[in-house]
Amino acid sequence: MYTALLNDPEVAALLADEAQARAMVRVERALAAVEGRLGVIDAAAASAIEKHLAEFEPDVADLARGTAAAGVPVPALVAQLRRAVGGDAAGFVHWGATSQDIVDTALVLQLREALVLLEGHLAALIEALARLADAHRATIVVARTRFQQAVPTTFGLKVASWLAPLPRHRARLAELRPRLLLVQFGGAAGNLSALGDRGVAVMEALAEELGLGCPAMPWHTERDALAELASWLALVTGSLGKLGLDMVLLAQSEVGEAREGQGGGSSTMPQKANPVLSEALVALARRNATLLSGMHEAMLHAQERDGTAWQLEWATLPDMVASAAAALSHADHLVRTLVVDAAAARATLDAALGLPLAEAVSFALAEHLPRADAQQIVKEAAREAAESGTDLLEVVARKVKVPIDWHRVRADAEHPACSDLLIDRVLRTATSAMAPSSPAVASAGTRSSA
Amino acid sequence: MYTALLNDPEVAALLADEAQARAMVRVERALAAVEGRLGVIDAAAASAIEKHLAEFEPDVADLARGTAAAGVPVPALVAQLRRAVGGDAAGFVHWGATSQDIVDTALVLQLREALVLLEGHLAALIEALARLADAHRATIVVARTRFQQAVPTTFGLKVASWLAPLPRHRARLAELRPRLLLVQFGGAAGNLSALGDRGVAVMEALAEELGLGCPAMPWHTERDALAELASWLALVTGSLGKLGLDMVLLAQSEVGEAREGQGGGSSTMPQKANPVLSEALVALARRNATLLSGMHEAMLHAQERDGTAWQLEWATLPDMVASAAAALSHADHLVRTLVVDAAAARATLDAALGLPLAEAVSFALAEHLPRADAQQIVKEAAREAAESGTDLLEVVARKVKVPIDWHRVRADAEHPACSDLLIDRVLRTATSAMAPSSPAVASAGTRSSA
Amino acid sequence: MYTALLNDPEVAALLADEAQARAMVRVERALAAVEGRLGVIDAAAASAIEKHLAEFEPDVADLARGTAAAGVPVPALVAQLRRAVGGDAAGFVHWGATSQDIVDTALVLQLREALVLLEGHLAALIEALARLADAHRATIVVARTRFQQAVPTTFGLKVASWLAPLPRHRARLAELRPRLLLVQFGGAAGNLSALGDRGVAVMEALAEELGLGCPAMPWHTERDALAELASWLALVTGSLGKLGLDMVLLAQSEVGEAREGQGGGSSTMPQKANPVLSEALVALARRNATLLSGMHEAMLHAQERDGTAWQLEWATLPDMVASAAAALSHADHLVRTLVVDAAAARATLDAALGLPLAEAVSFALAEHLPRADAQQIVKEAAREAAESGTDLLEVVARKVKVPIDWHRVRADAEHPACSDLLIDRVLRTATSAMAPSSPAVASAGTRSSA
Amino acid sequence: MYTALLNDPEVAALLADEAQARAMVRVERALAAVEGRLGVIDAAAASAIEKHLAEFEPDVADLARGTAAAGVPVPALVAQLRRAVGGDAAGFVHWGATSQDIVDTALVLQLREALVLLEGHLAALIEALARLADAHRATIVVARTRFQQAVPTTFGLKVASWLAPLPRHRARLAELRPRLLLVQFGGAAGNLSALGDRGVAVMEALAEELGLGCPAMPWHTERDALAELASWLALVTGSLGKLGLDMVLLAQSEVGEAREGQGGGSSTMPQKANPVLSEALVALARRNATLLSGMHEAMLHAQERDGTAWQLEWATLPDMVASAAAALSHADHLVRTLVVDAAAARATLDAALGLPLAEAVSFALAEHLPRADAQQIVKEAAREAAESGTDLLEVVARKVKVPIDWHRVRADAEHPACSDLLIDRVLRTATSAMAPSSPAVASAGTRSSA
Repeated sequence: MYTALLNDPEVAALLADEAQARAMVRVERALAAVEGRLGVIDAAAASAIEKHLAEFEPDVADLARGTAAAGVPVPALVAQLRRAVGGDAAGFVHWGATSQDIVDTALVLQLREALVLLEGHLAALIEALARLADAHRATIVVARTRFQQAVPTTFGLKVASWLAPLPRHRARLAELRPRLLLVQFGGAAGNLSALGDRGVAVMEALAEELGLGCPAMPWHTERDALAELASWLALVTGSLGKLGLDMVLLAQSEVGEAREGQGGGSSTMPQKANPVLSEALVALARRNATLLSGMHEAMLHAQERDGTAWQLEWATLPDMVASAAAALSHADHLVRTLVVDAAAARATLDAALGLPLAEAVSFALAEHLPRADAQQIVKEAAREAAESGTDLLEVVARKVKVPIDWHRVRADAEHPACSDLLIDRVLRTATSAMAPSSPAVASAGTRSSA
Repeated sequence: MYTALLNDPEVAALLADEAQARAMVRVERALAAVEGRLGVIDAAAASAIEKHLAEFEPDVADLARGTAAAGVPVPALVAQLRRAVGGDAAGFVHWGATSQDIVDTALVLQLREALVLLEGHLAALIEALARLADAHRATIVVARTRFQQAVPTTFGLKVASWLAPLPRHRARLAELRPRLLLVQFGGAAGNLSALGDRGVAVMEALAEELGLGCPAMPWHTERDALAELASWLALVTGSLGKLGLDMVLLAQSEVGEAREGQGGGSSTMPQKANPVLSEALVALARRNATLLSGMHEAMLHAQERDGTAWQLEWATLPDMVASAAAALSHADHLVRTLVVDAAAARATLDAALGLPLAEAVSFALAEHLPRADAQQIVKEAAREAAESGTDLLEVVARKVKVPIDWHRVRADAEHPACSDLLIDRVLRTATSAMAPSSPAVASAGTRSSA
Repeated sequence: MYTALLNDPEVAALLADEAQARAMVRVERALAAVEGRLGVIDAAAASAIEKHLAEFEPDVADLARGTAAAGVPVPALVAQLRRAVGGDAAGFVHWGATSQDIVDTALVLQLREALVLLEGHLAALIEALARLADAHRATIVVARTRFQQAVPTTFGLKVASWLAPLPRHRARLAELRPRLLLVQFGGAAGNLSALGDRGVAVMEALAEELGLGCPAMPWHTERDALAELASWLALVTGSLGKLGLDMVLLAQSEVGEAREGQGGGSSTMPQKANPVLSEALVALARRNATLLSGMHEAMLHAQERDGTAWQLEWATLPDMVASAAAALSHADHLVRTLVVDAAAARATLDAALGLPLAEAVSFALAEHLPRADAQQIVKEAAREAAESGTDLLEVVARKVKVPIDWHRVRADAEHPACSDLLIDRVLRTATSAMAPSSPAVASAGTRSSA
Repeated sequence: MYTALLNDPEVAALLADEAQARAMVRVERALAAVEGRLGVIDAAAASAIEKHLAEFEPDVADLARGTAAAGVPVPALVAQLRRAVGGDAAGFVHWGATSQDIVDTALVLQLREALVLLEGHLAALIEALARLADAHRATIVVARTRFQQAVPTTFGLKVASWLAPLPRHRARLAELRPRLLLVQFGGAAGNLSALGDRGVAVMEALAEELGLGCPAMPWHTERDALAELASWLALVTGSLGKLGLDMVLLAQSEVGEAREGQGGGSSTMPQKANPVLSEALVALARRNATLLSGMHEAMLHAQERDGTAWQLEWATLPDMVASAAAALSHADHLVRTLVVDAAAARATLDAALGLPLAEAVSFALAEHLPRADAQQIVKEAAREAAESGTDLLEVVARKVKVPIDWHRVRADAEHPACSDLLIDRVLRTATSAMAPSSPAVASAGTRSSA
């Protein structure tokens, strides 16, 4: 029921049991192919396996029963595959491999596809945010620090701060990908024991066959790349959670400076439009922040294989990928449809009695007075302004006789000179992140969808 | 695929979307009934609602779509119910309620049933462990502290230490239940605004109707009882995780003092029997320890309702209940089928060169020598024993001429006098926990299965 | 530097190294006393130990060095104590105990005192909140659900929702205390191996001597009571975090309905008063929610003692106690000094164009029209009111000709009839929680400060 | 008392209050210098500030009091600095900056130094592990998967699996550094409001002055780089926790294949040598896995500054750095002093009745029989071997008449052909990681210690 909030249908399909089962079949088939090619197994047997597994559809219910018995689905899968292949060739299925080789490599294949989707969402979101930041360079809003009105700023700069981390996330993804998209092939205990001196060759050929990288040694017990991926997923949802939190706060009845294009209805209050997507972004961020611990706990993977740590990964990582996918998709929808109310933002400033200009006033005064005096005067004037409902600048102008053009001070403060420069700088990082990725990554992406 | 490891089918059914939808219908129907009875809504309308909703089966796919739009399933549900009721009566469905009243009360109804199941599993497990502890009062094993052989103990006492926390968990459950099994009914913002001065009466009557307790005030934003439940679930899985961890360590090839009745097979190593259930217990414990953070984060529930915190609960609590149910079920199966190898345990002690008796030897010597000297002698003798492969007691007897009956020392140390007393004490706490619960709790349990 | 925000000086002193060292000495001394009394050790030796340890001040720097070497401070402590006692009696120090007996029992003694402090803070806070709720029964504010103005409510009821969980926390504390405040005494591996058949008698006498409860068996590896305490600490900070979050939101410049009595200054903006204490409450709540995972991870305590799990507790629990102490102390200060701006709250409602009365209007109309029609009319009228800046009730009155006394509707909606009843109910739970605790608990408290 | 286990003295000093206070002074001084140079403030005032702050020692106790009042130490610090500078120049201290500019930049300066230390530890550890792996290429041990003996492998390969992630951690550090080591300078709300159009120039000059990078825009609310650092710290402790866990398991009395060079003593069992450092590695890993959630929660940093999220960082990140430092230092000590008992490892294999060769036997048979038959025969033979205490190869040789050289099978299985190749591959990644880092990074490191 809550799937639409907490998951993304495309990514959910990529991580479903059926997809995992198919990915495992793909790995077993590729293994037979390369072992046949290298003469590790009989070439005819390899051909038979390749042929019979080309269209093989595994029985997922049977795999579930097998998982309950063995703690991994692979023994049941291998039994299915051997029945499907039949004859002498059946014995060459899964030659020299261990369950973890199949489960982990299949996971990597699934993640490769999921990351292509996530990266696509991320690129689209970067573009949408860049457009939005550019469109609101001149929309003046009040900045709020520690939940208090601070100084005038632009909505464009606020959007730029939502955007700024995203190109970094894209860079991080490019960096972690080659550490993550590696074949897993180590045999019983990670030393390729069953394959004599040809083990490394098979590992390399299998990587090549599947379009994956080849690790220095099997990573059965080195789970850092998965934990790093989990951290990346939490970084992404964390940045989007900040966006969601800001939108929730901007959409408050008393603020109303921006709102979701289409809020959710209430079952009893006809006037309400709840910030459904924004709330979901916050919830998904906190969800991934929580789950991340589990993936780091799972790095304590004992000895040459540890079922306790491995099961913890299975229970954790898919939910994190789903959260990131849902968050990216919600954020994209939100950013493309959100409504900015520049008039409301202007009204906020107008109602603020000039208090957000206090810093500017104090700097203006400081050109004529010692700064401590300037701050003291402004502090008192701010109190007076708030109590009397008079504009701060008027109060100050009345109190202090210095040749200051107060209109100029107001105008300058309300159009912060650096806002545009900073937006430009952020947009440049976004544009360079939009450039086509490096050939290696791109081809990995391409292959994965082949 | 991993459901059999990470969930329990009965509890999964209780927490499924269909069950939640039915529970929400039950709440809406009960609400109309009591409002009709109290004259808050038209009696005929109330009867019509009761009649039409008696067998109503909600359309879950439609609720999912509605949830995506509104962030909660209730607006879509109310629309379904009004269509089902039809006529003027339709307008009296959901009278004075808000979405959260329905979702939270339905959750409480589901949890009430789930807790009956969990409590049943817990009681069965307590019984099984009590039997096992009793059966192994005389099975001598070596205790291991900080992963080193320490002193002789009994397998029965080890089982008693697995058992001891469980009656406490049962007591905790009895304590938290009345805080948790409360109706939620507060209307739009928790002050029963739409019902004039009859709001509290409706809240009380609805609680009565559903067999739930009635809170001092609506608990829309007070999520402590849910976080407390989550903590309880993590306490349960934590204790079972310790059991699983101990079994994993006892089942190691080099130890082999206990093993699962039916281990999982390997896809490449014919000799192996993997401790599948024990591993799952550890993984489920770490999973709940991780998720627990999320439920406590969700206590920061802003103002009169906070979608960010509320969604985080939905994404977290069901997985925690599932983990606890799976863990209880795995532990029960494990405890009933595990195999203790008393001969292997004896052999461990025999192979230990008397080193686990070092403490006993040092206390025996201390009756004749200053204790510091006794400890020093034993320390040196232990080194000598280990290096020469001689039994510690022989080494000491050779080194020190004191009138000690070393056979007696060995026999006493290998049959720790307090083990039985301690087992008895633990079994007594288990038995008293097995007594029928208090009438209040029992009737809540009974009602929930009605 | 941040201690004032993240800790409480009194509790910090109770948990400091010096306090722990003194508590360990107290345990060793009590052990010798009861062993002397029971004839387990020589009575003269026991007297000598009691005498020499009465005023003994342990060398904490030496304990730190010893901890680095042994992983626990006890071997170094025992060496210090034996040097202090001297002679033959020295050998009877720590007789039959293991390091964990001393560390755990000392921890329990420290926690007993810390809980007295926390409970005192909690009681004071309950009283302060009860007074505040009572004082603001008639202060009308708008409730906010999902960050949108919802319906009118009272500030008193809002305070009641901050208060309501606290008596439950007090009840939980009373429930967990007898599970937590237990002596730890099990010897080398938890079976009292060194004490023959007198082990249980020593355990019971030591409990009595220290005013602690006696467990069914040593709880070296059963860490549920500590994890339960950690959960309680997180429940407390969670409830206070909600209070802090609400205050942060109420103190926003655009809301301004309540603020801290003394906000923090800004280094550059003279007009600002930052909600320092409220922010700290939120941060401390999230801190404890995070740390709680660690305490539940530590329940996976392997075999008869597990240094990995045990060290994790040491690194985690003190910070959680500190966070709870700081949060209680901040909340108390905040509640006693916060300023409610009833005029601002009134102005919020006045500026809201009657939209928070939409539910009331729709219920009023529903007495004359089908409810669906009523809701539809109000929904359209709400849009029109917002766009035209007209009051909702005027718009509706113009649109629909029904004999409704709109002034009455407004007055009723703005004075929710149940608010007072609900506040009364909550205050009753607070008052009963304020009654003197049960004799057992009270005497434990008294003893601990003896 | 536990500092030696949970922290590292050098890093502790870098993160102490005194170091933070000095770093803040350094930032304020550098700011005045560049503002003077750019003509933003009076050049004479800038010189005066530079001169007076050159040796200024802040009063940390006063900062602590100021933090309690303002929620940040900066207002109190600025007051101290202005008193120190005196005269008109005093007013130019902190010109255009906000508290967060100072606190965050100071943190970055401290982290820069801490990372140099951590990187040094990491490099030393890589070197030590590389030597250890190389030294044990021929030390045959049994691999253990899912806590069961699996197949023969080498201790060298086991060490290689501890080593393999570390060069990746070094690469990750090099990648994250330029995202982390950035100046923070944004003024009141991140748009450099007080500095007119010269704000970006000051930001760039300040970065240059401090040897830091310059961000696209101030990162007040973009905390991804800090969360990424936290993830990196948890990755490092996670990998070392796996090493510690393996050592704990290898040092078990029943295994005894490796042990700490200097174990910790027990207070009651003279024979024991507890794996203190290994346990600490596990505890520190779980600690950082737990704390990591908090840093990701803190990414939800509201609006233009959020004290709740910011305080959560302060409470969390220093402990994570400390844990990583302690873990690296413990691991280094452990690896340099651990003792491998090759004879014990050989004895384990000899006692295993050939069962770890089951896979090899099944592959040998599969050259003569269908694989399914081969596996079935070995499975039965394994059971027979275990029950009768006969070597598996003998049992199989007796059962099946095929021309297999069983001595050859044994010899090959016990000297896995790929082990050396895999070790070589890992050592190559270690060596390339040992090469001097990129000039940028190196110079950042150098500057930081200037």
